[in-house]
Amino acid sequence: MSGNSFGVLYCVTSFGESHGPAYGGVVDGCPPGLELSAADLQRELDRRKPGSSRHVTQRRESDAVEILSGVYEGRTTGTAIGFLVRNEDQRPKDYSAIADKFRPGHADYTYWQKYGVRDARGGGRASARETLVRVAAGAIAKKWLRQRYGVVIRGYLAQLGSIEIPFKNWEAVDANPFFSPNDAVVKKLEAFMDELRASGDSCGARVNVIAENVPVGWGEPVYGRLDADIAWAMMSINAVKGVEIGAGFNSIAQKGSEHGDEMTPDGFLSNNNGGVLGGISSGQDIAVSLALKPTSSIRLPRRTIDTRGAATTVETTGRHDPCVGIRATPIAEAMLACVLMDHALRHRAQCADVTPPTKVVKAKKIN
Amino acid sequence: MSGNSFGVLYCVTSFGESHGPAYGGVVDGCPPGLELSAADLQRELDRRKPGSSRHVTQRRESDAVEILSGVYEGRTTGTAIGFLVRNEDQRPKDYSAIADKFRPGHADYTYWQKYGVRDARGGGRASARETLVRVAAGAIAKKWLRQRYGVVIRGYLAQLGSIEIPFKNWEAVDANPFFSPNDAVVKKLEAFMDELRASGDSCGARVNVIAENVPVGWGEPVYGRLDADIAWAMMSINAVKGVEIGAGFNSIAQKGSEHGDEMTPDGFLSNNNGGVLGGISSGQDIAVSLALKPTSSIRLPRRTIDTRGAATTVETTGRHDPCVGIRATPIAEAMLACVLMDHALRHRAQCADVTPPTKVVKAKKIN
Amino acid sequence: MSGNSFGVLYCVTSFGESHGPAYGGVVDGCPPGLELSAADLQRELDRRKPGSSRHVTQRRESDAVEILSGVYEGRTTGTAIGFLVRNEDQRPKDYSAIADKFRPGHADYTYWQKYGVRDARGGGRASARETLVRVAAGAIAKKWLRQRYGVVIRGYLAQLGSIEIPFKNWEAVDANPFFSPNDAVVKKLEAFMDELRASGDSCGARVNVIAENVPVGWGEPVYGRLDADIAWAMMSINAVKGVEIGAGFNSIAQKGSEHGDEMTPDGFLSNNNGGVLGGISSGQDIAVSLALKPTSSIRLPRRTIDTRGAATTVETTGRHDPCVGIRATPIAEAMLACVLMDHALRHRAQCADVTPPTKVVKAKKIN
Amino acid sequence: MSGNSFGVLYCVTSFGESHGPAYGGVVDGCPPGLELSAADLQRELDRRKPGSSRHVTQRRESDAVEILSGVYEGRTTGTAIGFLVRNEDQRPKDYSAIADKFRPGHADYTYWQKYGVRDARGGGRASARETLVRVAAGAIAKKWLRQRYGVVIRGYLAQLGSIEIPFKNWEAVDANPFFSPNDAVVKKLEAFMDELRASGDSCGARVNVIAENVPVGWGEPVYGRLDADIAWAMMSINAVKGVEIGAGFNSIAQKGSEHGDEMTPDGFLSNNNGGVLGGISSGQDIAVSLALKPTSSIRLPRRTIDTRGAATTVETTGRHDPCVGIRATPIAEAMLACVLMDHALRHRAQCADVTPPTKVVKAKKIN
Repeated sequence: MSGNSFGVLYCVTSFGESHGPAYGGVVDGCPPGLELSAADLQRELDRRKPGSSRHVTQRRESDAVEILSGVYEGRTTGTAIGFLVRNEDQRPKDYSAIADKFRPGHADYTYWQKYGVRDARGGGRASARETLVRVAAGAIAKKWLRQRYGVVIRGYLAQLGSIEIPFKNWEAVDANPFFSPNDAVVKKLEAFMDELRASGDSCGARVNVIAENVPVGWGEPVYGRLDADIAWAMMSINAVKGVEIGAGFNSIAQKGSEHGDEMTPDGFLSNNNGGVLGGISSGQDIAVSLALKPTSSIRLPRRTIDTRGAATTVETTGRHDPCVGIRATPIAEAMLACVLMDHALRHRAQCADVTPPTKVVKAKKIN
Repeated sequence: MSGNSFGVLYCVTSFGESHGPAYGGVVDGCPPGLELSAADLQRELDRRKPGSSRHVTQRRESDAVEILSGVYEGRTTGTAIGFLVRNEDQRPKDYSAIADKFRPGHADYTYWQKYGVRDARGGGRASARETLVRVAAGAIAKKWLRQRYGVVIRGYLAQLGSIEIPFKNWEAVDANPFFSPNDAVVKKLEAFMDELRASGDSCGARVNVIAENVPVGWGEPVYGRLDADIAWAMMSINAVKGVEIGAGFNSIAQKGSEHGDEMTPDGFLSNNNGGVLGGISSGQDIAVSLALKPTSSIRLPRRTIDTRGAATTVETTGRHDPCVGIRATPIAEAMLACVLMDHALRHRAQCADVTPPTKVVKAKKIN
Repeated sequence: MSGNSFGVLYCVTSFGESHGPAYGGVVDGCPPGLELSAADLQRELDRRKPGSSRHVTQRRESDAVEILSGVYEGRTTGTAIGFLVRNEDQRPKDYSAIADKFRPGHADYTYWQKYGVRDARGGGRASARETLVRVAAGAIAKKWLRQRYGVVIRGYLAQLGSIEIPFKNWEAVDANPFFSPNDAVVKKLEAFMDELRASGDSCGARVNVIAENVPVGWGEPVYGRLDADIAWAMMSINAVKGVEIGAGFNSIAQKGSEHGDEMTPDGFLSNNNGGVLGGISSGQDIAVSLALKPTSSIRLPRRTIDTRGAATTVETTGRHDPCVGIRATPIAEAMLACVLMDHALRHRAQCADVTPPTKVVKAKKIN
Repeated sequence: MSGNSFGVLYCVTSFGESHGPAYGGVVDGCPPGLELSAADLQRELDRRKPGSSRHVTQRRESDAVEILSGVYEGRTTGTAIGFLVRNEDQRPKDYSAIADKFRPGHADYTYWQKYGVRDARGGGRASARETLVRVAAGAIAKKWLRQRYGVVIRGYLAQLGSIEIPFKNWEAVDANPFFSPNDAVVKKLEAFMDELRASGDSCGARVNVIAENVPVGWGEPVYGRLDADIAWAMMSINAVKGVEIGAGFNSIAQKGSEHGDEMTPDGFLSNNNGGVLGGISSGQDIAVSLALKPTSSIRLPRRTIDTRGAATTVETTGRHDPCVGIRATPIAEAMLACVLMDHALRHRAQCADVTPPTKVVKAKKIN
């Protein structure tokens, strides 16, 4: 498997750079017969789009997607779905001042060392703009999972810098530019971001993603674990530095008598395991949490080196998200959707003929 | 890629169950010419072995490994390395009392639902005893990485239940049964474990793993990210519920001016990124931290259901680790070694002809 | 995917050398619930076994197989099936005379150039003894395909040296040591082989394999083509130099009006396409033919070089098959079974929900 | 690996349909630093292009390719290379007469049974127009292999229908619309094709491909065999029904004393093995031959069924190649290039540190 593809049966391949002509992707393995149009992808792409509020990068991109293959008369054919998004608002000049300097915390140094190539235009392939490919691929997975299994995948911003955001309801999430699940804290978030932007600095964030109605049985017990693939998927998102499933790091100080989710004929009594037991979905909500680091491109001056190895300082003045975590919610949802769809297909390939001896535990949702 | 294999070029395949005749594995892709004997694998297997102190499971296994192929006259040949470890101390009777009950927090429920098979003998394929395959495969990777690139991979127990263990030195790690990097806390750990065992309960743990001297340039910027593959590898270990790289979840509340590791001609001035920038190794130490949940097999009674779906309670009296985290250090080291070796090979496949324009940043270690 | 594994969902991994301690394999992805015992594998292994007549190598191996995992209470569990065959009759001394010489037409030269390793003991990993792993893996696939879909996979020797063997009936195949489908030619084959052995030379062969009752729809139209994977599988067998499907090389001189298999409501009227149209199974018999080259280890003296590059001659006096094609039938059957099973699983993963608009063409067998 | 991608390290992903908006592909794993422009791809695409003579389909396509990513300032960056070719001359109406009928020998029947989708517009994903993606991907591989290793990959038409074309010289190949390596037979080929077209029928062809200067050591001895991957690659080309390497099917009647290529300090004395011994390149020319069946879309009436399963006849009057083999030469070259490049990268990943004990056999070309 090459480094620009992922998935065993629901396979996503991605290409494109921040300041090249276009981004695009190929989704392979989607079952035939799913109703699909560009609008299905566009809806999700618009949730990730830059320039949608003053709190994110001001790059102006319509992110208009064109489906090039794999859909015929409004339905998927079962063959490869190619799609394309043209870049519209490149400003390579923005990078001329830092063309020979490395940004602390940025991939430009490692990328240059690896490939011997210096593409200073907005990070080249390392730009987070690549995540639009994931969002488009995830839109297809989300739709299929919902229609076929009733799976619902939703995320929200759980922390911005040091501001924790208590979950209130799903309705709030789409009603503000932060994906905050709590309307009461939005003003505080806005004030915080306005101050942060003014200071020329950036901050990190936590995003939570939940998948509901996932059937029991997806994933495998050893290397093909559902949770391991989810961890991969989340850590593959730009800026992510940590991933938790269920109780996550809180598990360390828990006792077994507290952590292990008791079962009754009416369902599980808790969800410390986050919907995955032994690498296999349990029928409970899949609950994932991720940590995103602060953006490395900031206006504040920082010590660094240049391409000749000399000491210098760097300030980044282009258009950048002061907190990449704000736009990360649809990306994390998309990655979770792709992983779940891959495992849904893998599961039915191997276990289509299995009838569990008795159907017992209701997949009751634990709040 | 099937669910019992991992790796693109350094590929590990695993088989075996806790109460079957044997575990074994196949390591494919190892370069030829590496000096290798069963003793190299045995050394690492002995670090993971059960029964080595009163704080871990009392199952008695020599875990003696036999190399079946891929080594000729003391050196690897470049072909598949097969190895085998016979199980010696199965006690399937231990499980008769819980043969028709599911343990809260255990894979036995999901495994049974997925496959329609109930192998109650010690968890079947879901048993953590499978990790011996990883340790054997990791021993080969560790040796090659050290000889070829000087890479050193070491781990330690950073927290046991609620007891945090401050890192003191590497020498301490092998001098106690906990992989504690601090001799001063060992007595406290022993007392805690004795009490835990007596109570019939279990606890979680945190393990940290560090890889030193990793060259800059391993990994790719999008899906073939080094950090994503590390996250996968760690989350694939039984009982792991969270993974952090570098500053991890602390990144959330950091400012960009704090998080982004400044660079000077003498090296990086910090290592918040944990040795990976944009998915590519930076030349700094790779720093990974993982959370392991408490063992689900405990003596305390818990509410559950049986295979007919009826409410019941379960107590597990067999031989179990009261804290699987205690033996997790060599496993985490092994998984990190396998991922690094895979990326070392992938990197030189693609970039063998690259000469970085200038060699600049010393890969100075940040403490 | 590493070089000692194949298959996407039905994945086979192999290890072992001709003169090492053992061969073994791992079959991953087999559905749970299939009745399976070592006897199922042994039956097929015995068909491939050396020493079964005077016309094949006289190496004495019981080829007794042990299943190490993946089977519980007589049924597959859905997890990795590990199996092992110990080598019993190694005679490394046989190779001492040619330890520093290369056999014309043998892998020993390329193997040594590639890996820098000279394992002169019977070809090391390049020995055709590895095919026992394929036969064991194929035995499982064959059984599952037959039980689940009624697929029957059978092969026969179609040509030995220049003796063409007209197909008479399947009953004949197992009644002679050549897999000849025609009892009338067996005496001629025996006389030919006796003379060939006496001359110290070797010969090639053609093997045909047929899969009946394969449902329409397995395989994909572009790179995941069923016929391409079959071609890979056959050419991966030691000594194979050519593969045909359906009319094969005869297609070149055919007209389209002759080659294209006409269809009626009662079925296809011919099978030039060999059961695959556009990479997808048509419901007709899958018909494959392969060419095996003559064994390279012969007693006749041949010009060659030694490991220092000097000109010399070589004669090979160990135990070798004078025609590897004689034992190739069960191997070709096994490889076809593995490929078909992989595609059966892949097809139902993606297309489980497809209902073809109308069921029309009977998959009538064409003779 | 999904069904629209191939390659382990040099990985090609393809999308597009004959009558959709565009075809495109993603080439992943190309080393950085290779000079590359759209013209490099266009040169090869033009060799495959329809409408270039009266002997091939008259569909008018410029096949103009746009590179969308992976190239910066005229050189590859090491990241995914996306490219796009818009379809220009679709005539879906041409297919209205056969919209509900299946063409004997065509994929339309199996495709419809598999996916439950009937895309009658020119074969949909099963159209041979997809091969332009292969040609574009192969152009990059060809260029890299030539620059890095001096590998030269060339093919020619060896037989058209029943007319065998004796190889004369490479210069002839590009001087006629048939890729005939013999100018003396061109008139005969033209007359044959004119008559064939007039008759409304089609014919098959044989194409040979040769790779010169391939270093010894590419490929592996078991499943990662170079020859097996070549067989896969050739059989994956539309209409191919047979593949031979070296002596191919002639090996059957050869004796070992004839087939095994003798070696001297000056090189091999013959090339029956076609440049591959034991799955590993020998340093000799890689010699591959493939059989292409006659086109299934012909004007002559044929018995078939319609989508309701009723008996009917079908005549195909659209624009079709009367012999797809005529345009197959650049496609076969491209597939061979992709496979060789993949193995070049895989080989240096594993064996970069190998120094063969002595360098002995000159890779002398055998004619």
